[in-house]
Amino acid sequence: MELLDKLNWRYAAKAMNGETVPEEKLQNILEAARLAPTSSGLQPFEIIVVKNQELLEQIKPVAWNQSVITDCSHLLVFAAWDTYTEDRINYMFDLTNDIRGFKNEGWENYRQMLLNSYPQKDAEENFNHAAKQAYIAFSQALTAAAFEGVDATPIEGFDPTAVDKILGLREKGLRSAVLMPIGYRETNEDWLVNLVKVRKPMEDLVTVMD
Amino acid sequence: MELLDKLNWRYAAKAMNGETVPEEKLQNILEAARLAPTSSGLQPFEIIVVKNQELLEQIKPVAWNQSVITDCSHLLVFAAWDTYTEDRINYMFDLTNDIRGFKNEGWENYRQMLLNSYPQKDAEENFNHAAKQAYIAFSQALTAAAFEGVDATPIEGFDPTAVDKILGLREKGLRSAVLMPIGYRETNEDWLVNLVKVRKPMEDLVTVMD
Repeated sequence: MELLDKLNWRYAAKAMNGETVPEEKLQNILEAARLAPTSSGLQPFEIIVVKNQELLEQIKPVAWNQSVITDCSHLLVFAAWDTYTEDRINYMFDLTNDIRGFKNEGWENYRQMLLNSYPQKDAEENFNHAAKQAYIAFSQALTAAAFEGVDATPIEGFDPTAVDKILGLREKGLRSAVLMPIGYRETNEDWLVNLVKVRKPMEDLVTVMD
Repeated sequence: MELLDKLNWRYAAKAMNGETVPEEKLQNILEAARLAPTSSGLQPFEIIVVKNQELLEQIKPVAWNQSVITDCSHLLVFAAWDTYTEDRINYMFDLTNDIRGFKNEGWENYRQMLLNSYPQKDAEENFNHAAKQAYIAFSQALTAAAFEGVDATPIEGFDPTAVDKILGLREKGLRSAVLMPIGYRETNEDWLVNLVKVRKPMEDLVTVMD
């Protein structure tokens, strides 16, 4: 399967060469993230595409000084909603009604159920839930990058509070969840590029109950 | 891009016809999950493939009686580690050394850093972190199903404690995070199949900082 070839090709590039990813490829990567399924279809996250070099220089020291932060083409910051609010839930249900062109009783009952549960929950619990949805999109974007022949490095090693501050995310009701610099591998400076990919054998990952 | 076609084709099938997904397709879907990148490469989850109809009948009522639970071909249960332990961390670092055939000081220092942090953290925090990694794999498996022409329904609407009990997951140090029945859509009984896919417009999802 072509997908498996792409997933075997990709790896977490530890050095990039600064080359710019063409706009069309960037848009395809973002589109894959946009198409990701999320819980109740709420898409509870945003993606901040950081191209500004000064901002990248500020983020690097709060991301373990990883060189890919500044040597990437674009840094994609997946930022989840800090909580679920009535407005945010209504936005997606209204959008769905607009796009589909009709209202449906079952769907409206479902909206009410969400309105009566999520906004009353603890914000931290809601953020954690939203962040998981962001990871589904993050994963699809990683895969899309591989299809575009673009390197993409998953990064959790950063100080989210600091990144939120640099990018002004909290004021927008967002919290950074995970980073993805995209660009092109700098083979000569990357300690990981020639090492074999390590994964658990299937028998340690999967149990069949039949 | 072919990937975008596949992501547009897929949707959360709400009814399946009971047909069996061929073993080769199932294995490709699992392989995509196995190849997913995870934080520090720990792959902190397992996948339980439930084929046993009695178990599926037990799970259905604790998953909002969704018909796909019993009409699917296989139910993939993504179960994250209940916490990070020394043994679990050492397993992956030892596996890496075995596969790559050498020890490396930087890598061993990194092992020690993880051993000195994760196992001391709150189990709930660790589970939440592990669950996010499971979502990366979950997402890759969803995409792989689309490449195989297999329907796959992301399901968070279930009682994880009940599913853990039915499958005996807690005894294995696992907690169910998210479900994925795979199979084939039953077009005549699926209210969602003919509705247009709804996603936020790109301008509401993405902010560029250049």
